[in-house]
Amino acid sequence: SGFVHIKNPHLDMMDEDILYHLDLGTKTHNLPAMFGDIKFVCVGGSPNRMRAFAQFMHRELGLAGDGEELADICAGTDRYAMYRAGPVLSISHGMGIPSISIMLHELIKLLHHAKCRDVTIIRIGTSGGLGIKAGSVVITDMALDSFFRPRFEQVVLGDVVVRNTELDKDLAEELLACSKEIPEFPTLIGHTMCTYDFYEGQGRLDGALCSFSSEKKLEYLRRAYDAGVRNIEMESTAFAALCGLCGLRGESSRTPLP
Amino acid sequence: SGFVHIKNPHLDMMDEDILYHLDLGTKTHNLPAMFGDIKFVCVGGSPNRMRAFAQFMHRELGLAGDGEELADICAGTDRYAMYRAGPVLSISHGMGIPSISIMLHELIKLLHHAKCRDVTIIRIGTSGGLGIKAGSVVITDMALDSFFRPRFEQVVLGDVVVRNTELDKDLAEELLACSKEIPEFPTLIGHTMCTYDFYEGQGRLDGALCSFSSEKKLEYLRRAYDAGVRNIEMESTAFAALCGLCGLRGESSRTPLP
Repeated sequence: SGFVHIKNPHLDMMDEDILYHLDLGTKTHNLPAMFGDIKFVCVGGSPNRMRAFAQFMHRELGLAGDGEELADICAGTDRYAMYRAGPVLSISHGMGIPSISIMLHELIKLLHHAKCRDVTIIRIGTSGGLGIKAGSVVITDMALDSFFRPRFEQVVLGDVVVRNTELDKDLAEELLACSKEIPEFPTLIGHTMCTYDFYEGQGRLDGALCSFSSEKKLEYLRRAYDAGVRNIEMESTAFAALCGLCGLRGESSRTPLP
Repeated sequence: SGFVHIKNPHLDMMDEDILYHLDLGTKTHNLPAMFGDIKFVCVGGSPNRMRAFAQFMHRELGLAGDGEELADICAGTDRYAMYRAGPVLSISHGMGIPSISIMLHELIKLLHHAKCRDVTIIRIGTSGGLGIKAGSVVITDMALDSFFRPRFEQVVLGDVVVRNTELDKDLAEELLACSKEIPEFPTLIGHTMCTYDFYEGQGRLDGALCSFSSEKKLEYLRRAYDAGVRNIEMESTAFAALCGLCGLRGESSRTPLP
């Protein structure tokens, strides 16, 4: 059918669904009218960057006006920012798995309530590169945890539930094909490692705590590279798991910084 | 000595320390001049609320001006917001452990570079209450994970390191004593459960995914209550672990919402 899958039997019994962290709701907003024609959702960490991305899409799509004055659809909250440009929604998610998870739960319900069909979601942003040229784009085929396993562990009522973190292979190939038209950004498909911590969790030597040597750090990163990891960030496993379970065609495509 | 402890031998060998997510650095800013006299740091999720809190502190401390125009010290980035009112620093940290961890690593280094002494850090904000009156204030004596264990697990180069999550007991008692002067907010000391997820992780029935019944949810929350949990949020274990390791006198004090 192409609809988003909600896997929650309780939702049908609710009189009203308040998407609290987006400052939207089924009684306060006409979600089908506002979002029914959305086909692409692009998400990234920083609100300013996601506004700039929406403005860029506005210009690229040749929409009326210069796009400078796009309104934040979630202006009533400072948890996330949301902009739209034609069929493209651009949303910030903050940093880390817990932050992106809250946004994705509410976004998925939004797309469901709005009766959107055939939605593609792409996570864009920066990351740390591993053995590749800075400024390359890594299209993720599979997200791995800190132990290089393709899994996302979610604690549900005190039990650990393991979820798949594969992303849409066809979409990855389509994006790779698109990249051929933009030769200035070397692009590759690879695994992406997702950590819960930026400093110790990614082997950085410049946090407030660091108990390991530069050699041990390099050894860990070498093992990651050998496991197929080409970049490191902090959201991809949760993103892959949630999109996969809810039938959203999803991809994560990120640029390692120098 | 009262100084903040940095447990990273690499830092001394660095020519410059860039606190990237705060848009501050040791070469670009005179950190001792800007922050050397800070004695209290209050942190919370939302940037707007932390600005409002700084404005409130500005008025409470009787500082010059109405405090409405406080400048965001981290204006060059949209990752976090930071304001100061006299000896009080007010900083946002976003939602979840990964987000607060990045901020705390850089804040702890900031306090170290600024040569601050005897700093008290208090995390303030909202939470979900457990068996207590909405609007109460829970002062955390110990943060627990989703399995009701007083521990924070940090993955370091693929190894799980377990850290203590006890908070400063004297500070908790001091805050409780202060609360006696404000009878409109019932205040108690209790354990706080910290989860990586807001919906499934806290037993909510209204996420995009929910595989459990209302009865199972209540059973889990009852078990949490029996383990001493009085409120649930998403940052306290990492906060307690990092503050404890770095010698910051820390406390988490949160108001359960209705």
